Amino acid sequence: MADSTGVLEQLQRRIRELEEKLARETGGGQTHRVRIERMSPEVTDSNPYSRLMALKRMGIVKDYEKIRTFAVAIVGVGGVGSVTAEMLTRCGIGKLLLFDYDKVELANMNRLFFQPHQAGLSKVKAAEHTLRSINPDVQFEVHNYNITTVDNFQHFMDRISNGGLEDGKPVDLVLSCVDNFEARMAINAACNELGQIWMESGVSENAVSGHIQLIIPGESACFACAPPLVVAANIDEKTLKREGVCAASLPTTMGVVAGLLVQNVLKYLLNFGSVSFYLGYNAMQDFFPTMTMKPNPQCDDRNCRKQQEEYKKKAAARPKEDIFVEEEEEIIHEENDWGIELVSEVSEEEMKAASGSALDLPEGIMPAYTIPDKEEKSIDEAPVTESEESLEELMAKMKSL
Amino acid sequence: MADSTGVLEQLQRRIRELEEKLARETGGGQTHRVRIERMSPEVTDSNPYSRLMALKRMGIVKDYEKIRTFAVAIVGVGGVGSVTAEMLTRCGIGKLLLFDYDKVELANMNRLFFQPHQAGLSKVKAAEHTLRSINPDVQFEVHNYNITTVDNFQHFMDRISNGGLEDGKPVDLVLSCVDNFEARMAINAACNELGQIWMESGVSENAVSGHIQLIIPGESACFACAPPLVVAANIDEKTLKREGVCAASLPTTMGVVAGLLVQNVLKYLLNFGSVSFYLGYNAMQDFFPTMTMKPNPQCDDRNCRKQQEEYKKKAAARPKEDIFVEEEEEIIHEENDWGIELVSEVSEEEMKAASGSALDLPEGIMPAYTIPDKEEKSIDEAPVTESEESLEELMAKMKSL
Repeated sequence: MADSTGVLEQLQRRIRELEEKLARETGGGQTHRVRIERMSPEVTDSNPYSRLMALKRMGIVKDYEKIRTFAVAIVGVGGVGSVTAEMLTRCGIGKLLLFDYDKVELANMNRLFFQPHQAGLSKVKAAEHTLRSINPDVQFEVHNYNITTVDNFQHFMDRISNGGLEDGKPVDLVLSCVDNFEARMAINAACNELGQIWMESGVSENAVSGHIQLIIPGESACFACAPPLVVAANIDEKTLKREGVCAASLPTTMGVVAGLLVQNVLKYLLNFGSVSFYLGYNAMQDFFPTMTMKPNPQCDDRNCRKQQEEYKKKAAARPKEDIFVEEEEEIIHEENDWGIELVSEVSEEEMKAASGSALDLPEGIMPAYTIPDKEEKSIDEAPVTESEESLEELMAKMKSL
Repeated sequence: MADSTGVLEQLQRRIRELEEKLARETGGGQTHRVRIERMSPEVTDSNPYSRLMALKRMGIVKDYEKIRTFAVAIVGVGGVGSVTAEMLTRCGIGKLLLFDYDKVELANMNRLFFQPHQAGLSKVKAAEHTLRSINPDVQFEVHNYNITTVDNFQHFMDRISNGGLEDGKPVDLVLSCVDNFEARMAINAACNELGQIWMESGVSENAVSGHIQLIIPGESACFACAPPLVVAANIDEKTLKREGVCAASLPTTMGVVAGLLVQNVLKYLLNFGSVSFYLGYNAMQDFFPTMTMKPNPQCDDRNCRKQQEEYKKKAAARPKEDIFVEEEEEIIHEENDWGIELVSEVSEEEMKAASGSALDLPEGIMPAYTIPDKEEKSIDEAPVTESEESLEELMAKMKSL
């Protein structure tokens, strides 16, 4: 019996040892990072916020602590969305709402964030686990579903409207980090209906270009106002988007796009620097076009048109000085077929060289898809024989080109 | 006895269970990712290289598998270096050599990569552990020391010369991800002596600007040819670099700089797109200046001058067509006090507006430090009373301004 007691004790000791190790590794039970009630600027090795609070002393951000009062929804927790969530978590955001219905696969290991041992787990659950251990001060709400189905879309709308830091209040920002047109259109529809400000992000299927875009319903072009834009990568687009071909991706391009996106989020929420309405990234040439697009008065989305009316009313009610400032903006192009006006940082010469088509875009930016306008003309003004084509039909046509 | 046998079995089962869990978490014993002998383009969920091999089908990279034949040394495994190492690991680089002497602290948690439970571990050891579990196909060699001490510098030189994928061969590229002037000068000295191509990276102390730079000894300006450049963030530089003030940092800026750096590495190693000699990032304005700097024939580093002579000889021996192509490059400025020529993407008008000082730089780029030239004149040509000032004295002077 004495022997067996000794063995028992030995085994129990080993179990305690393993449990402690596991807790350290997973951050599940006992992390090395306790919750912090108040962000401190104290310069010590143990303060996870010292380098962020230093932004105040450096004169960059006036009130960094305000980051804790914001709730951000991230739709899509893949190559861009997961890094976006990690950056906001490390910055000490108040609350993150994550939406995705995918599972982690080894095929995702060429992007940052997820690790091989997480293969098979749902992306939102795996992300929540890692993010909580990185920063237990952040609140998380995760939804493992596809937002484009009717029921889920209603629930998604409800969480955007009521999932803020204070229950019943809307979130402060929605970030689209999805990889398909349908999900982007769903986010666009929800945000137009709710008047919710959001940011779009995207990476091309050849992995070497990407963009971010800020959409303020009624004030800047929504996703339905204009065809979604991509930065051309100086390669033949016809080789892309063939059926059955898996898209390429790189941790570099996705990391850069997530970094530019979250930088824009921080500038917008914490009120520093200039927030970009559109910022493209062409990795082949290291070219970064920027522009601003006005909404299309003939937008297909009636909620977008409604938001435009409301924005006009608000603008008209503003004191004259405000309006004068806005008129000082250098508007390079008059209204065109798409009802889009560009405020571009590209030189006027470059703009002239790029003009001629119905949709005038700065050099290096091109539509990701073509969508017929009201007059049933395609983008190059060639008549389209069928009316009311579905997106699938259009995509099939593009593929056959 | 029957009871105690039952308990023993139960405890042993619990130990096995915990050991398996721990192995999964740490990736130490048993990862969910086995070694892969040959990169395959197969499109399956379990292939970690499918999205990278797709770059071939997309016409971006001719021979992606070649990535496995390269060894890259990363000096500094902090906010930029750790993400740089993770990106290269996920891309399936052949070998990584990591150099750092720092420990992980909770104060680093506002940047990507390290996690709270790693606080107290050496950065290179913690990084190696995580990176191995992400991709067991990569070879790692880590050095937990400061490269600037005499003995370590010799060892560092030796590893650059002999630490390649094949023992005794040099590494293919050195990446500087350090945060101080001395370490950059040490890397510069080593690479000039060895004729080793390297890339520099940096992030400003106010966290809102950064840059990457490719240095080919003898062909482009080395770190001693010109004062290290930074992208101005449109804020008062006098508020920066005060003693005792901790630098600010953001996961966004550091993630973007790491992404731009590794993108440049991939373009250089795998021969696609155009490799940037200098790419800046101003986060406040989303402004990304690029330029090329010729080496300074009066560079203080004699090994740089030697490399310049060798490069000239090689250029003279090249067939005429090659030289003609090079002369077609638009060289905007003649030689100046610093012996620097700029090949800039900034417009000539912008250049004119920025000219006047001894060091002509594109708008938005400025020296990070001032270093006296041979004639003992400071950068704005004001006479300096003391000669042979140390860097510390100069820094003290700058601070007092």
